[in-house]
Amino acid sequence: MGKLKILLLHLINKLADFDFLIRPNQSRFKIREFYLKKYKFTFHSASIRLGINVYFKQKGNISFGRRCCIGSFSQFWNYDKITIGDDFLSAGNLIINTGSHELHDLSPYSKKVTIGNRVWCGTNVTILCGVTIGDDVVVAAGSVVTKNVENGTVVGGVPAKFIKRIENRTKVIKQFEWLD
Amino acid sequence: MGKLKILLLHLINKLADFDFLIRPNQSRFKIREFYLKKYKFTFHSASIRLGINVYFKQKGNISFGRRCCIGSFSQFWNYDKITIGDDFLSAGNLIINTGSHELHDLSPYSKKVTIGNRVWCGTNVTILCGVTIGDDVVVAAGSVVTKNVENGTVVGGVPAKFIKRIENRTKVIKQFEWLD
Amino acid sequence: MGKLKILLLHLINKLADFDFLIRPNQSRFKIREFYLKKYKFTFHSASIRLGINVYFKQKGNISFGRRCCIGSFSQFWNYDKITIGDDFLSAGNLIINTGSHELHDLSPYSKKVTIGNRVWCGTNVTILCGVTIGDDVVVAAGSVVTKNVENGTVVGGVPAKFIKRIENRTKVIKQFEWLD
Repeated sequence: MGKLKILLLHLINKLADFDFLIRPNQSRFKIREFYLKKYKFTFHSASIRLGINVYFKQKGNISFGRRCCIGSFSQFWNYDKITIGDDFLSAGNLIINTGSHELHDLSPYSKKVTIGNRVWCGTNVTILCGVTIGDDVVVAAGSVVTKNVENGTVVGGVPAKFIKRIENRTKVIKQFEWLD
Repeated sequence: MGKLKILLLHLINKLADFDFLIRPNQSRFKIREFYLKKYKFTFHSASIRLGINVYFKQKGNISFGRRCCIGSFSQFWNYDKITIGDDFLSAGNLIINTGSHELHDLSPYSKKVTIGNRVWCGTNVTILCGVTIGDDVVVAAGSVVTKNVENGTVVGGVPAKFIKRIENRTKVIKQFEWLD
Repeated sequence: MGKLKILLLHLINKLADFDFLIRPNQSRFKIREFYLKKYKFTFHSASIRLGINVYFKQKGNISFGRRCCIGSFSQFWNYDKITIGDDFLSAGNLIINTGSHELHDLSPYSKKVTIGNRVWCGTNVTILCGVTIGDDVVVAAGSVVTKNVENGTVVGGVPAKFIKRIENRTKVIKQFEWLD
């Protein structure tokens, strides 16, 4: 897309930029649905909950699972592929950044980010390039995830470290079922 | 409020969205005063200093003490009650989030946040649900406050921990008196 | 500048607010060039790469070296002088805050921030008042820099601490040469 086209797209999106839920056949959300489709992301469901002021660096390179809730003010720096599983829940200010630079000469590179099912990120979480997060994971607020995260764990801190295991995680997240 | 009403309110606010000080009888700040009143917050003073791009999740559930200064780009996720004391001072990018989720099934809940008098938050501070911060507290930049904070202390880090006691805190914050 | 003038300037900037590169004789970027000039910053080169939604607290007090890339959503709280060297590279959400407050009475003060050459800041880095960062430094994502940083080091964390030395840093950052 040319720069003017992107700018127009952003302006159109701004007109509908409040907390919203995309569901089929709801005309009031058509503007943002149009916006997301223009960005050519992959959706494994007709529904997604997206907060306000969510930023996507570029087109493509993002795959959303079913029943995903993305908090307001989140940023997707999708230089490389970002894959998000089912029942993903993020509070506001999530940053997923697939870009990085070499230490010795600052030349840029990118690596994909993969997130499993039933992952919850608290507010202001940053996930860096190359990271794979397993299923049933909780990332504490304010964390910076720099390494892979095992299934069924809570991680937190800068950089994020193992805090504890999650016991008795209910596999089906009841409150998001209506999003299907 | 309907979604369209909220959107219109935000657009009206954007028109006056620069650093401002609400004081009685100053017509130039009437637009943002109108905006704040629409949100039905409680003010214990006619004056508040509010930066640009401050975000409120919903109406009500916030009580501001006297002489409060809220930095730009701050966010109030007021699912539950947020109570702020007198002489509160926050740099930009404050996040107060009263919402959270259960670890075992991600069902949502909320808890109130209470902040005492003469509290200063550095830039980019996050305060999580259920937290009570005492009087004369300083929260270091970039901190995530997950537990209660005692009177007269400096805390910092992710999660925020005790750093030191504040000695000889002057009870009256001179430079904010003109805000009365 | 009066408040209305600042508001108009911000609205004009919004019209051109997408990732851009200022280069001489490129008419399409004239709007943001005009905006930056109005802010009376010092440029040691005709070129700068600036992301979207970059915020400057006030006019003046910023000096950019050659081949600087400032990520989107960055904030410059330039109460005091901010000096940035050559080949500076920042991901999004950089915060440089030259303002602070005394612990005992919260009276405000400011101190300058100085950044050397070939410094890279990851996403969501905060640099506080009074800090001097040397040459060939990398600041890890999510860090809060509260103290001076030595030449040729990687620092990270909240607050930022020494992580390791950078070996064999290539002095000339090839990929930015075209920005000259």
